[in-house]
Amino acid sequence: MSHAILLISCPDQRGITAAVAQFVADHNGNIIDAQQHSDTGTDAFFMRIEWSLDGFDLNREEIHPAFGLISHKFNMETSLSFDDDVKRLAIFVSKPLHCLYDLLYRHRSGQLSCEIPLIISNHEEARKLADDFGIRFSHWAVFRENKVDVERQQMELLKEHRIDSIVLARYHQILTPYFINEYRGRIINIHHSFLPAFVGANPYQQAHQKGVKIIGVTSHFVTQELDQGPIIEQDTVRISHRDSIEDLKRKGEDLERVVLSRAVRWHLQQKILCIQNRTVVFD
Amino acid sequence: MSHAILLISCPDQRGITAAVAQFVADHNGNIIDAQQHSDTGTDAFFMRIEWSLDGFDLNREEIHPAFGLISHKFNMETSLSFDDDVKRLAIFVSKPLHCLYDLLYRHRSGQLSCEIPLIISNHEEARKLADDFGIRFSHWAVFRENKVDVERQQMELLKEHRIDSIVLARYHQILTPYFINEYRGRIINIHHSFLPAFVGANPYQQAHQKGVKIIGVTSHFVTQELDQGPIIEQDTVRISHRDSIEDLKRKGEDLERVVLSRAVRWHLQQKILCIQNRTVVFD
Amino acid sequence: MSHAILLISCPDQRGITAAVAQFVADHNGNIIDAQQHSDTGTDAFFMRIEWSLDGFDLNREEIHPAFGLISHKFNMETSLSFDDDVKRLAIFVSKPLHCLYDLLYRHRSGQLSCEIPLIISNHEEARKLADDFGIRFSHWAVFRENKVDVERQQMELLKEHRIDSIVLARYHQILTPYFINEYRGRIINIHHSFLPAFVGANPYQQAHQKGVKIIGVTSHFVTQELDQGPIIEQDTVRISHRDSIEDLKRKGEDLERVVLSRAVRWHLQQKILCIQNRTVVFD
Amino acid sequence: MSHAILLISCPDQRGITAAVAQFVADHNGNIIDAQQHSDTGTDAFFMRIEWSLDGFDLNREEIHPAFGLISHKFNMETSLSFDDDVKRLAIFVSKPLHCLYDLLYRHRSGQLSCEIPLIISNHEEARKLADDFGIRFSHWAVFRENKVDVERQQMELLKEHRIDSIVLARYHQILTPYFINEYRGRIINIHHSFLPAFVGANPYQQAHQKGVKIIGVTSHFVTQELDQGPIIEQDTVRISHRDSIEDLKRKGEDLERVVLSRAVRWHLQQKILCIQNRTVVFD
Repeated sequence: MSHAILLISCPDQRGITAAVAQFVADHNGNIIDAQQHSDTGTDAFFMRIEWSLDGFDLNREEIHPAFGLISHKFNMETSLSFDDDVKRLAIFVSKPLHCLYDLLYRHRSGQLSCEIPLIISNHEEARKLADDFGIRFSHWAVFRENKVDVERQQMELLKEHRIDSIVLARYHQILTPYFINEYRGRIINIHHSFLPAFVGANPYQQAHQKGVKIIGVTSHFVTQELDQGPIIEQDTVRISHRDSIEDLKRKGEDLERVVLSRAVRWHLQQKILCIQNRTVVFD
Repeated sequence: MSHAILLISCPDQRGITAAVAQFVADHNGNIIDAQQHSDTGTDAFFMRIEWSLDGFDLNREEIHPAFGLISHKFNMETSLSFDDDVKRLAIFVSKPLHCLYDLLYRHRSGQLSCEIPLIISNHEEARKLADDFGIRFSHWAVFRENKVDVERQQMELLKEHRIDSIVLARYHQILTPYFINEYRGRIINIHHSFLPAFVGANPYQQAHQKGVKIIGVTSHFVTQELDQGPIIEQDTVRISHRDSIEDLKRKGEDLERVVLSRAVRWHLQQKILCIQNRTVVFD
Repeated sequence: MSHAILLISCPDQRGITAAVAQFVADHNGNIIDAQQHSDTGTDAFFMRIEWSLDGFDLNREEIHPAFGLISHKFNMETSLSFDDDVKRLAIFVSKPLHCLYDLLYRHRSGQLSCEIPLIISNHEEARKLADDFGIRFSHWAVFRENKVDVERQQMELLKEHRIDSIVLARYHQILTPYFINEYRGRIINIHHSFLPAFVGANPYQQAHQKGVKIIGVTSHFVTQELDQGPIIEQDTVRISHRDSIEDLKRKGEDLERVVLSRAVRWHLQQKILCIQNRTVVFD
Repeated sequence: MSHAILLISCPDQRGITAAVAQFVADHNGNIIDAQQHSDTGTDAFFMRIEWSLDGFDLNREEIHPAFGLISHKFNMETSLSFDDDVKRLAIFVSKPLHCLYDLLYRHRSGQLSCEIPLIISNHEEARKLADDFGIRFSHWAVFRENKVDVERQQMELLKEHRIDSIVLARYHQILTPYFINEYRGRIINIHHSFLPAFVGANPYQQAHQKGVKIIGVTSHFVTQELDQGPIIEQDTVRISHRDSIEDLKRKGEDLERVVLSRAVRWHLQQKILCIQNRTVVFD
């Protein structure tokens, strides 16, 4: 009863959907879900197709080669996965623990189908929580001088734990381009403002000073420009002049937890594709 | 550059998407948009597929017969239309004019691609507005005694104006089952509560008495049970103890306009299918 | 730097605000916050006034008697408290733990200024969580036959722990009128629907069957009519035809946590007054 | 049955509320509504108090002088008005008419208690609408060369029509500092982005390129820095990758109408005070 999931991007042209759907049908697969998007600005085509492997006449290893002809014909970039693949996440966190706490609770209650073998922090605050959940906690004091060295060692640790993707659950360190590049498209951050407003530090304070009437939070893929990567999800909440910066923080943190968890779940479910610096999220 | 739009409902089984996509491809159509939904509770399959007629090798009249084999094989109910079909709407309205006003403005500014040749009312309030927009206004004093007779005459008027669908833009008369049946699935109502809460008259007053903290509005297809037809769209807005019934009315009316116009636009764009008493809205 | 908080309800008439504000000023108090509401339907007046005790020339015990003249003159019901009073909450919970988990996390992180010495459940699921947080867990198997007896013993336990208020954090037992009466106005429930829609069991399933496009949750005081007590807070989230009952549950649970925590915080901050079956929430 | 409305800003200190409330009571006024706000960052105090003149023992002209002692003692800035004052608005508009249309409809239906004697535009599009509503329409072709001269003549026209406040209902001209200064705190603009994001031209296009998942609109007082004046109200709406720039425009326009009308209504009701570059909106 497993499903195969195929993500496709290619230049838009006639016959793509038909070719892909026919491929699945020819091998006796049953399409569970198929969504597509033609991006008018860039003339790009995006598709996510999910089919049942029950009765499908190709083995998992045979699918990609068999699809090669279609893929080549339409000049596709593809990504094939299976719904019973279990991704391995590492969570990076600094002092505020609300997002970490939330992810661990959702994981325990079955909302996130992945493994979380590793929590990395530049502070000690998260250690007890990691212990409670039986997860390896790795602490690193990070300074300007040792950052490159620390990242190198962290990367070894990530490889040792076979980490697929990284979640920055309020991790207040800027990663080096080298590190980001190694996990390109696989690092998800939560930024506590409605980007592109209030980039950088202390966004709740910035929002309070600006006198906005609504605050927001943003989950995005990390790229080399700070807080500028493709946006996966955002949400907003109303505030008033009565709200102090502390109130903004409290209200915002409720959003951060929900928005980050949505982004992580969609990433695990292979629902996100990138168009240049934007995302297509097939919901 | 016209598009064909095909709406499909049928029992779920293997190969439907492939067969439909292949049909379009075989006749050299280019799929612009395809969305599907498998409803797990009812084992029903729903699809909306839109393709360009540019280069398509069938005439408009030939499409339906040519699709007959597939349709028959999968036991489909289908509905074929074209994006340049122009539906003809009649708007029924009583005293409050905000929804009528809004629909007429959107129509004039190009947001609703349809014709609106007729406004029917049981009051005189809307006459001036109809005149301003150059639309035929037809007034009917409706009483219990003459309702059946009035409806019969209204129906003749609707036929005379070749009306496809009816929008009840705050029309405070209950239609007879006979009338509803004649326009089954083609009468859209706006109810000023978050259904199923506060069915019937004076929902804002009901909401105020109940002390809810949020009010809502609902647009739905009209069926023979009052305010119980398939819900097309809803939206909500926050209120507080400071809000009087008048405030609720004002806040609610802002929602009514937006929610009704969304429902009407989706109906015109052939984006809505019904599953029993629920809707699938392909957005 | 402590604050006094005075909640007032009385028939509306001239001079109330002035009399109250003058009382505080006469004793050298500094008003931090004053909010009032005149309810037009019931001609009732509601006020919440908070002032600093720094320099105030009355002891805490002297305030209530000194205010007696004003209170008597305007026929007031009053409730005096202090922001450094620490209320003692008991949390009742059944199998789903998301609300409990959330309340405990917020309590630990300082968002809820209260003590939580006791968790009561009719199931064993919450025991580990209670242990992790070092809170007494008390389990009771509840049947129709022993309910009255169990409640009597629970009430003794509540008194032993000097419990001020009770939070039903998804507690799936209906309390007896006797029990409710003992904690009248001090039992807060979370119901997983947008009341008054979908009263009773399985509201997410009811919502799915009805085909609503938005779901909601409601926190309210418990009264003897099931799910009919004064509403404290509600919130809503958009859903679509793609969402299964499981998705509704997941989306709804995110709301339940936030909405229940808001209601509990406002209750702890003495921000809620009841008008008949509605609430005034001074935010 | 008229009401007086007094807006107060002053440095925060003891006894302000009591002094103001006592003043009203001493002259036999009945407080209808009183709201206050102590801004912790700036140690400023803000108050809006509304009382019935029924039985009040001062004439309208006597109130301000009589209040002088209190005003002087607390170093207040005050603004006194009456709920039956009828402000006179001029609306400035360019080509898109949705906000103008909306304001005129709300005015006609009694939601905005003001007079609207004048519509000014740099285009001809709004003329018919102005005519339909019987409002003087004044057209000015504006170029860089004649801008100062045009503004000077517009200002004479505004004075001739005794205009109190100006609403920029999508007016795509930047006003000169001189003009802004003349109507300081009395020019309300609608900007079609969630400020401070997407300042300047084509914000929907900017939002689309950035790939945000939510768009917003902002109503603010106009100051000399473009799109940087004190924010009065904002609102947001969810979008997806499926939405074109046209869709953003349509969704955003629905918000623009609601948000601008809220800001205008609050301004007419004397509910807005400014703290530096932020607003207090007493709702």
